[in-house]
Amino acid sequence: MIIDWKKISNSIYTGIKQKIERLEKKPILGVILVWEDAVSLRYINQKRRFASFVWMWFAFKQLEKNISEQKLLKTINEFNEDRNISWFIVQLPLPKHLNSKKILSTINPKKDVDWFNPINMWKVLIWNDSWLVPCTPAWIMELLNSLKIDLVWKNVTIIWRSNIVWKPIAALLINAWSTVTICNSKTKNIYNFTKESDIVISATWIPKILKLDMIKSETIVIDVWFSIINWKVFGDADFDNINIAWIKITPVPGWVWPLTVAMLMKNTLKAAIWLWKI
Amino acid sequence: MIIDWKKISNSIYTGIKQKIERLEKKPILGVILVWEDAVSLRYINQKRRFASFVWMWFAFKQLEKNISEQKLLKTINEFNEDRNISWFIVQLPLPKHLNSKKILSTINPKKDVDWFNPINMWKVLIWNDSWLVPCTPAWIMELLNSLKIDLVWKNVTIIWRSNIVWKPIAALLINAWSTVTICNSKTKNIYNFTKESDIVISATWIPKILKLDMIKSETIVIDVWFSIINWKVFGDADFDNINIAWIKITPVPGWVWPLTVAMLMKNTLKAAIWLWKI
Repeated sequence: MIIDWKKISNSIYTGIKQKIERLEKKPILGVILVWEDAVSLRYINQKRRFASFVWMWFAFKQLEKNISEQKLLKTINEFNEDRNISWFIVQLPLPKHLNSKKILSTINPKKDVDWFNPINMWKVLIWNDSWLVPCTPAWIMELLNSLKIDLVWKNVTIIWRSNIVWKPIAALLINAWSTVTICNSKTKNIYNFTKESDIVISATWIPKILKLDMIKSETIVIDVWFSIINWKVFGDADFDNINIAWIKITPVPGWVWPLTVAMLMKNTLKAAIWLWKI
Repeated sequence: MIIDWKKISNSIYTGIKQKIERLEKKPILGVILVWEDAVSLRYINQKRRFASFVWMWFAFKQLEKNISEQKLLKTINEFNEDRNISWFIVQLPLPKHLNSKKILSTINPKKDVDWFNPINMWKVLIWNDSWLVPCTPAWIMELLNSLKIDLVWKNVTIIWRSNIVWKPIAALLINAWSTVTICNSKTKNIYNFTKESDIVISATWIPKILKLDMIKSETIVIDVWFSIINWKVFGDADFDNINIAWIKITPVPGWVWPLTVAMLMKNTLKAAIWLWKI
């Protein structure tokens, strides 16, 4: 079975929209862009489109590519302090002359989208506080929730490449009492782990790495990203050879982005309500 | 084989002592105690004894049990700002009227022993920066290092109960390219994981939970803590039935504490050198 992400993502968007309709003020999602490249602009326009769909405002600030660190930090601080801006992101990648680590840690934790900020990571990891969960782990949890999966007693294998993804998702699943194995490209006998798993989360960007015989029946396969090779889109799962009749799998391409942005909107709404309260 | 922790811990203490002997100033380890109970006092005296062994000074501040949060925070800030104090700990547990979370996050990250402080956790987890690793995960890594274990390609199972332990140790091992499974009391088929492991780290405080038939030959078993039942000390491993000829295992009782305190000293020395530099 291919997981019906459209249904899941529509219900999330509808939920957000209904909540915003009842608000007197609209939340504002901010985006700071340094470096005007086509890909970043496309991403930003998609975010703008999704935001308008749920009746959320959009504050966009574009800065020249050779901006000084000091000037960028000044803009970030303006966004940090502006009570109208509920939440904002600094679009990555940044030009090389800027220190990403320093810049990202300047963002107000209450308005921070990612785990580049220590406070938010700390809340989720140590205190099991799900206040602001980064978008990718957030949609994975939302998806499992929509499928009505009881995470207790479940074995989960995460095949990762990026630090930013496995750590929060592993923490959220372990906090929910799943048993989690984190594999990497140097794992021996990876089959032993995937074969025992009820849920396999793959985020390697290596096309077709997840084969039919690695997965047992009834497993939920979450294929987190995709790779593009010769204009063709590939997931981590080897779709041609996976019998989708006996597993549940997320489709590639196209499904990740709407869910990721939905989480962005959800977090922005949460942050807005929080900001207005104080 | 029982791992010779005395040899490992002696060589760590000797190393710290030799480094401190060459310093003009001595590092100072601070301890703040609220609540005078016998167990805490015993722990503190042991720390004092180990500190004097490596020629480190010891700054001890005892506060009355019913101290106000404000006064305790004031003392912490004095320790934070005192350039002579290299590193310090607030002895846990704190009396119930005090908000541990708030108090522990007040400690200067550069002088913080544990991961209660977001900055240190963030450095280790996200940036793979091993500047100040909490004592328990630090000695686990030190032990594996003394045994000359190449962590790449290794399967590790962690059986946990405390948040504070599994997260840093899992992060450190995964950063070193091990494949890590985190099990808990709700894991089904735990044998599947322990049987496939080259290293099993158990920190459940459940006596004798780790049985002979759960572990394959040549496995390294790290028994992190111990429980005391009817005046008898038990580890997580079922010693009576484990054939120590074909595994490597840490002994229970007695070995954890010297290594934990050794890491405290090592971190204090690091922090002292760092403080003097600025």
